[in-house]
Amino acid sequence: MSESQNEASNAFDVRPGEMATELPATFDAGLYFIGRIHTPWTRREDCPKHARESDAVCTIEVEERYAPALAGVETCTHLLVLYWMHRSRRDLVLQVPRHYGEQRGTFALRSPVRPNPIAASVVKLVAIEGPRLSVVGLDCLDGTPLLDIKPYFASTDAVSDAVVGWHVEQKS
Amino acid sequence: MSESQNEASNAFDVRPGEMATELPATFDAGLYFIGRIHTPWTRREDCPKHARESDAVCTIEVEERYAPALAGVETCTHLLVLYWMHRSRRDLVLQVPRHYGEQRGTFALRSPVRPNPIAASVVKLVAIEGPRLSVVGLDCLDGTPLLDIKPYFASTDAVSDAVVGWHVEQKS
Repeated sequence: MSESQNEASNAFDVRPGEMATELPATFDAGLYFIGRIHTPWTRREDCPKHARESDAVCTIEVEERYAPALAGVETCTHLLVLYWMHRSRRDLVLQVPRHYGEQRGTFALRSPVRPNPIAASVVKLVAIEGPRLSVVGLDCLDGTPLLDIKPYFASTDAVSDAVVGWHVEQKS
Repeated sequence: MSESQNEASNAFDVRPGEMATELPATFDAGLYFIGRIHTPWTRREDCPKHARESDAVCTIEVEERYAPALAGVETCTHLLVLYWMHRSRRDLVLQVPRHYGEQRGTFALRSPVRPNPIAASVVKLVAIEGPRLSVVGLDCLDGTPLLDIKPYFASTDAVSDAVVGWHVEQKS
């Protein structure tokens, strides 16, 4: 098995210290993929660990039927982008992320593995051309399905003194 | 028709200047409601217009099967909460919000009316007791379905100089 296959299969395995829950038999609501995100990364292991690790300009392509919804977006310096981490298992409640090596609850992590694998990333808007947005600040795989674009309001979305306690300890 | 019924029906009407798109016939992915949010507001017109308008402590109740996923959340000062705005139509691409009175694209607004009505709110964590979180910073209806809880990282989530141009102009 090549290293890359190994990496891919690990994304679906349960490691020691991890715990799965039984998911409901049916979904409660449905999502539309409203576009696609184009990035330089085609393998999970090539993606930056954090969005701020890379200056790469990525492209968000909105489906034609939703393109009129972009009116006014050009006045925003930053956007909140929601997308679907479609390759992730959804039943783990306790995880041991490889780069931390400690067991933590899914809701204390930004891991793609979660009951509803919706990612939320703040991006800097560089340009808009028709239904295509050039942005900086994404770290996802090429071809990732887009769910939503929202204006980022510093007044309600920015909390610069917020602390994730376990992460601070890990670094010190 | 009472004022409250009128308000409710308006949430589903198309106002002059608004534009609907044709949504796809099928969904692309499914969501689990992982809990409920309890707030003081039972009617749409009573909800604060912005989350920071109210100091009300709201309660997020996570379903028992996902409760282990809260391990480590107690070390966070702030969380990013994703929830489902279940009473909203999904097909409007141009909207004329009543309190602004101007036509704008859905992706330039934080309106609940959008193809995927997922709200993202930053909350301050006040307390955790078992599967119940007490938080400040929500503005949604009582009983709103919960989708996700994420740790809020100031390093990637906080952009204090972000500007929404159309909103700045509106206020001046």
